[in-house]
Amino acid sequence: MSATPTVSAKPAVTPQDLADALAALRDRAPLVQCLTNVVVAGWTANVLLAVGAAPAMVDNPHEAGDFAAIAGAILVNLGTPFDDTTEAMRLAVAQASLSGTPWVLDPVAAGALEWRTSLAQQLRGQGRPAIIRGNASEILALSGGAGGRGVESVDSPEAAAQVAMVLAEQQRSVIAVSGPTDHITDGRRMVRLSNGHPWLTRVTGGGCALGALMAAFTAVVPDALVAAAAATATLTVAADSAAVRSRGPGSFAVALLDELALIEPVDLGEHVRIS
Amino acid sequence: MSATPTVSAKPAVTPQDLADALAALRDRAPLVQCLTNVVVAGWTANVLLAVGAAPAMVDNPHEAGDFAAIAGAILVNLGTPFDDTTEAMRLAVAQASLSGTPWVLDPVAAGALEWRTSLAQQLRGQGRPAIIRGNASEILALSGGAGGRGVESVDSPEAAAQVAMVLAEQQRSVIAVSGPTDHITDGRRMVRLSNGHPWLTRVTGGGCALGALMAAFTAVVPDALVAAAAATATLTVAADSAAVRSRGPGSFAVALLDELALIEPVDLGEHVRIS
Amino acid sequence: MSATPTVSAKPAVTPQDLADALAALRDRAPLVQCLTNVVVAGWTANVLLAVGAAPAMVDNPHEAGDFAAIAGAILVNLGTPFDDTTEAMRLAVAQASLSGTPWVLDPVAAGALEWRTSLAQQLRGQGRPAIIRGNASEILALSGGAGGRGVESVDSPEAAAQVAMVLAEQQRSVIAVSGPTDHITDGRRMVRLSNGHPWLTRVTGGGCALGALMAAFTAVVPDALVAAAAATATLTVAADSAAVRSRGPGSFAVALLDELALIEPVDLGEHVRIS
Repeated sequence: MSATPTVSAKPAVTPQDLADALAALRDRAPLVQCLTNVVVAGWTANVLLAVGAAPAMVDNPHEAGDFAAIAGAILVNLGTPFDDTTEAMRLAVAQASLSGTPWVLDPVAAGALEWRTSLAQQLRGQGRPAIIRGNASEILALSGGAGGRGVESVDSPEAAAQVAMVLAEQQRSVIAVSGPTDHITDGRRMVRLSNGHPWLTRVTGGGCALGALMAAFTAVVPDALVAAAAATATLTVAADSAAVRSRGPGSFAVALLDELALIEPVDLGEHVRIS
Repeated sequence: MSATPTVSAKPAVTPQDLADALAALRDRAPLVQCLTNVVVAGWTANVLLAVGAAPAMVDNPHEAGDFAAIAGAILVNLGTPFDDTTEAMRLAVAQASLSGTPWVLDPVAAGALEWRTSLAQQLRGQGRPAIIRGNASEILALSGGAGGRGVESVDSPEAAAQVAMVLAEQQRSVIAVSGPTDHITDGRRMVRLSNGHPWLTRVTGGGCALGALMAAFTAVVPDALVAAAAATATLTVAADSAAVRSRGPGSFAVALLDELALIEPVDLGEHVRIS
Repeated sequence: MSATPTVSAKPAVTPQDLADALAALRDRAPLVQCLTNVVVAGWTANVLLAVGAAPAMVDNPHEAGDFAAIAGAILVNLGTPFDDTTEAMRLAVAQASLSGTPWVLDPVAAGALEWRTSLAQQLRGQGRPAIIRGNASEILALSGGAGGRGVESVDSPEAAAQVAMVLAEQQRSVIAVSGPTDHITDGRRMVRLSNGHPWLTRVTGGGCALGALMAAFTAVVPDALVAAAAATATLTVAADSAAVRSRGPGSFAVALLDELALIEPVDLGEHVRIS
């Protein structure tokens, strides 16, 4: 509970933890309720199907709450929020709190747009997400009031990672800051992963897919830090393999789905770069 | 009109019927109005374009009814129903009844979710769909009250097929039960098709694409049993070819679109496994 | 301002202009706000990312107006208009007029459907789009009252091009008529481009992608005629390359994204067929 958290020399999460997590996901094929944006809805479903999870896009207010009681995990992604889908998000999050269903918040473009920043703050205030995933500026926007640091004062993933530790402790959620190196923290422990390929940023929904995979792993792994790291490792190690077979972002996205289906737990353990 | 329908030894639909149906589709390029879910909207349009049909996603309440009067056929898919799109569905179905436009109902997740199950029942009560397509549990959910069999009492496609015959007779619609073997019936005749590949279940919208193809074929083939069988054969024979060229679900989906464009009526007749 | 506009022998836009425009786009990675249809939202974002632009799908009424003030350009595509997204379009267009943000109108299916035809007319009356892009029948529908020519009297791209010149002069917008040969005019100058492949019509969102690319180019090129021509040349020259590597519409769409990332300004200048 230190105000100046430190990082231990020994990795908080081992390659074997990640391999075990992927094995568990393949074994249990968790049902993942996705309340996500219309741009990446199909892509997100394909990512989850490829890796071995069972996506269910139930994002209308009539059904989202009920379904949250039976889903293994929930993704709440703010990419294209409309009145009806945001109402569905509120209902799903409320039910998740009652049911103990883990959920992941992906506050897309928080900071850049006022309405959705406020929506993200409301949702995380309404219930505790297992994981909040975003890029540096999104995470910084959410922690605007935390520790007296404004968004404008920091802009690198490393700086965001320090803010993320404070936010994680405050919120009691795992915070994942995506970037060339991914930083994942629960406020005490900090994991860094550095696989992946720049083409992940040339395909729409690279980050959204990562949030969806995190949700899938929270359904099968009790430690949300391990879940977030396993999702990151799975996507980025698969991306490394996919990039080798690709000419550009189009063929890369296709190959990435193939690799997400082909990757085995042992590959994950061998190829992940974690510290 | 027997209460215990039987299946004749001779196929109700021949490979030549299927080949002729595909030739008719290529010749007439039917205009298919799609009221479908946001997850597979793009994929569905690409499937229809690849095979040679003309998709038109007109699913808002201001236009859906009017367009139903000029469309060759209509797809109503309940994957992500919202208030405005369900209102559009009601208007399209009402107009379809007036205009005699054939329509296909795909009651995605009926049974698992109460609101959409009720919506599916309302729509099929409001007008007679040419075809209802679903997996075993969706079809069983729709026939909950039919013949006194509850959903819980049966769960295999074969068992669902028997329930489907009763439902088909009652509803005067063709019922298509998708699975490793596809069962299609109009209450008197039963067709079984057994092409296809497991990767069809690892790509989002495999079933939704099938419903869309069924709609396209109803626009060019008067017998809805033949239309449903031709759609199933076209998708699954193309899937057989696509699987050979693929490494995983990503490349499979791409190859499937290619094969849907490349498949010729004669291929369909030669490779379909029908009984 | 002649009532019978003529076309000069010398091209209004040179291959070098197009190469320079692509270089500017790559250099500046413009932020393109997309208010587009749910069918092609993911595809449109991938096209923009591939070519080097930064798409932002901000299409809800709470945020669309504010974002229009900071976007480099705006795409307004009427493919699947709903009440909330059309309200967002109105707000974005209003703000674009105040901010001087260039915007592109893609009146999908104008003429075929009354409500959206009226919506398209309202939007172009509310503010001056930099470019209106459509196929011949959509452009003819918009110019219904212009010059006394009804939609029914003309139907070829060449005939539409003549109507487009009148519309362009009246509206003070560039009008782009897509077809096997693309015609682009600002009312005085007329550019014809003839690259491209029929498979562009077998992939959903071929035209929508073109509208999005036009928006991206208006953010970096002051002359909207050059922007529209550069977008058309980029998409169709990339399509030529993609077609060579493809077996059908599925692999073509994937290869097209690759080629949009790989194409260099010098390739554009060398391979474009412009007059």
